[in-house]
Amino acid sequence: MARIGVIGSNGRMGHALAQAIGDSEHDDAGGIDKDGDAGQLAANSDVLVDFSAPSAIAANLDAARSAGIPMLVGTTGLGPEEQRKIDAAAKDIPVLQTGNTSLGVTVLAHLVREAASKLGPEWDIEIVEMHHRMKVDAPSGTALLLGEAAAAGRGIALDGNRESGRDGHTGIRESGAIGFAALRGGTVAGDHSVIIAGEQERLTLSHQAEDRMIFARGAIRAAGWLIGREPGRYSMNDVLGLS
Amino acid sequence: MARIGVIGSNGRMGHALAQAIGDSEHDDAGGIDKDGDAGQLAANSDVLVDFSAPSAIAANLDAARSAGIPMLVGTTGLGPEEQRKIDAAAKDIPVLQTGNTSLGVTVLAHLVREAASKLGPEWDIEIVEMHHRMKVDAPSGTALLLGEAAAAGRGIALDGNRESGRDGHTGIRESGAIGFAALRGGTVAGDHSVIIAGEQERLTLSHQAEDRMIFARGAIRAAGWLIGREPGRYSMNDVLGLS
Amino acid sequence: MARIGVIGSNGRMGHALAQAIGDSEHDDAGGIDKDGDAGQLAANSDVLVDFSAPSAIAANLDAARSAGIPMLVGTTGLGPEEQRKIDAAAKDIPVLQTGNTSLGVTVLAHLVREAASKLGPEWDIEIVEMHHRMKVDAPSGTALLLGEAAAAGRGIALDGNRESGRDGHTGIRESGAIGFAALRGGTVAGDHSVIIAGEQERLTLSHQAEDRMIFARGAIRAAGWLIGREPGRYSMNDVLGLS
Amino acid sequence: MARIGVIGSNGRMGHALAQAIGDSEHDDAGGIDKDGDAGQLAANSDVLVDFSAPSAIAANLDAARSAGIPMLVGTTGLGPEEQRKIDAAAKDIPVLQTGNTSLGVTVLAHLVREAASKLGPEWDIEIVEMHHRMKVDAPSGTALLLGEAAAAGRGIALDGNRESGRDGHTGIRESGAIGFAALRGGTVAGDHSVIIAGEQERLTLSHQAEDRMIFARGAIRAAGWLIGREPGRYSMNDVLGLS
Repeated sequence: MARIGVIGSNGRMGHALAQAIGDSEHDDAGGIDKDGDAGQLAANSDVLVDFSAPSAIAANLDAARSAGIPMLVGTTGLGPEEQRKIDAAAKDIPVLQTGNTSLGVTVLAHLVREAASKLGPEWDIEIVEMHHRMKVDAPSGTALLLGEAAAAGRGIALDGNRESGRDGHTGIRESGAIGFAALRGGTVAGDHSVIIAGEQERLTLSHQAEDRMIFARGAIRAAGWLIGREPGRYSMNDVLGLS
Repeated sequence: MARIGVIGSNGRMGHALAQAIGDSEHDDAGGIDKDGDAGQLAANSDVLVDFSAPSAIAANLDAARSAGIPMLVGTTGLGPEEQRKIDAAAKDIPVLQTGNTSLGVTVLAHLVREAASKLGPEWDIEIVEMHHRMKVDAPSGTALLLGEAAAAGRGIALDGNRESGRDGHTGIRESGAIGFAALRGGTVAGDHSVIIAGEQERLTLSHQAEDRMIFARGAIRAAGWLIGREPGRYSMNDVLGLS
Repeated sequence: MARIGVIGSNGRMGHALAQAIGDSEHDDAGGIDKDGDAGQLAANSDVLVDFSAPSAIAANLDAARSAGIPMLVGTTGLGPEEQRKIDAAAKDIPVLQTGNTSLGVTVLAHLVREAASKLGPEWDIEIVEMHHRMKVDAPSGTALLLGEAAAAGRGIALDGNRESGRDGHTGIRESGAIGFAALRGGTVAGDHSVIIAGEQERLTLSHQAEDRMIFARGAIRAAGWLIGREPGRYSMNDVLGLS
Repeated sequence: MARIGVIGSNGRMGHALAQAIGDSEHDDAGGIDKDGDAGQLAANSDVLVDFSAPSAIAANLDAARSAGIPMLVGTTGLGPEEQRKIDAAAKDIPVLQTGNTSLGVTVLAHLVREAASKLGPEWDIEIVEMHHRMKVDAPSGTALLLGEAAAAGRGIALDGNRESGRDGHTGIRESGAIGFAALRGGTVAGDHSVIIAGEQERLTLSHQAEDRMIFARGAIRAAGWLIGREPGRYSMNDVLGLS
């Protein structure tokens, strides 16, 4: 039972995090937003969860470091500068930085990597995702994360092996390619399927999110797990004990 | 029990048709290819099934007409000239021309049209198909046929309302669009799904072909159905009693 | 734009209905529960929506009749006595009674009936549903409703043609049977698939509910549609123009 | 490039094996059936593949042992007596005994075990399979194999934790149970899905067989892999390098 402090508490994710803490065994240490005092929050918390903005990350890491508590970074859009700051902080405190805090997606990516490494390149890999009609980019970040897992399993880079947006005269499928397709419609929270198609048989590994709360719940579980760890950088794989 | 004559008997479809006739209650009246005598075949048949080439269609229709027997045209790549010849022949004999002889796909297209006409344009329609790695074009002809059915149900044209090959920054989904996505891999004979996604609920109408024999079997059933009909043009919908 | 009165306003469905009215073009005429005055509510409403209890239905119908307004009955567990009361009221006012107010499920049932009537009994029909782990009965009411639609399409009764809960040595599938399977787990709001499996091809017609709000939204749409109709009994099919 | 000898060459699997050898880099050393001479076949082979009968296994193992070559045992219905004979032979030669030689199913079982071990018992596991209408038992052997993999991942026994054939008033789902459902219809070669359903998210891990040839191809691959191994018992997991 730990006290969890939330940075970025007024955003959509902030509200979800507050609800997830309420549903958990942990205590809500309060939250701050743009003009809040991260140092004071850290002083009252056992772990910080940061879903704010890249520009705030340096100050937030400093606050965690001063208080000697771990920090989970779920903020997206980080550049190399922010990554270096995280590396530096991770010498003193445990830090987990990730683009996807869902437990199910974390396990799925692990399984995709495993399957791709065991089934050779004569098996074709396709990734198809569906999201609500308001989503403005394709493929989804999670689809790309799954594509990276497949590429890693095969020991290749995703760049240069990616086939997206087939339309018209495409020619036969490139051997070894990883294909992507994006469906949009309705209010779908997020469905992802990785199809691994061989000679007369097919594996399909899928994840369906019913609600975006799963990201908040996964973050809270990971935050609780971080407490008491050695300083260093961690991933969601570590939380779930995935090699 | 009828005698069925096959034109284009040496092609992949020709062999499948011979097998389908063998499995049916009907008799194989023999088959011809490029240099065969359609007139003689027609004289020994109760119905002709033509899966040959557009250039042969005029002579084949003449043979059926002279013999006073119906003809099923499954040849693809027909132009307006061939369609006019079919219209002319259909004044004297029953003719069924179609790009897809599968019973399941015919019923699916009918259901898609029905669903699209009953659920308004605030429901988003997406069509996703998967085929083997050797297929060179996307989307499949059957996917487009399903898209036409959806558009017809909505009373719009598919042209100008089609979204294919999403990739990169797409912006939010166009209201009323019909989306297409193509997956390629392995040896998949042909899977098609039409997703109709509304506010927090979704319909998915799918067809899976396990083997290309279904097209031959559907053609033979349709050929048997044609015998004894009034002269005129027919479709697979008529065979199945779909309005 | 109509005033909608809700009977059973404190239940889970009552709250969903209030939210659905708020999201719609209509006005909330207020709601009552067990000890409320249905007559007064009816006097201030253009239509009543009743999701209360079978024992309350007679009084509620009387209130609608006195006010000369239509009524939607979504209450489940009605017996022959309640059905007779509805028949009687329907001589004076429009009444729509249904066990499922989702638009998507209504359309799905229509498509299933259509498909089952066009594809003969040599196609095997299987219905599989998944619901959350707290559901205590199997198959779901909606699965049975879909089974009834399939049976109606075939011109048979569901009773006597139903195969549920296969386990152990079952023997080969009974020709003409309609099979049911129930999956339970997690928090799934409700997935239903009707599989129609023929010789080397398969149709799958599915519905996925992301949230139970769809039932409230469908009820509000149906209630709005009822206003101004002739007296009589209506169904969700009528709301959607399904024959 | 090896010479592969087939025992049980006249059965359905025997013919499929002959075709799979023809499609492979290997040579067909010929095949024998009930009254054939296993010793002579072994003398002309680099590996034996046995899909015959439990009663023949002792003599077949002896033949392989005398010739000093490995043997793959795909025969089903083995009892403890036959297993002891295999154990004894495996002191002298490499032996791989398995009930399922499909590469895809082998990988799927591995992924299911992995996922079940990483996601705790608060995730519900359901296994649903579909097979053609002639199948006489439920659930399928492969479904049970997947259930065993899930149970092993959780560190429990499948027996005593299995829920099959839900129908009627079932009560809420037993925590920790592994559920099974069987669909039957058409000509489906074999579809299996393992659903792992948590709080508002779901993983689905599926395998689809398009044709039973996959079992023959997997057997031939495994046979080739066995050549040159140390004496001992092997499994399909070893062939694919799965721990």
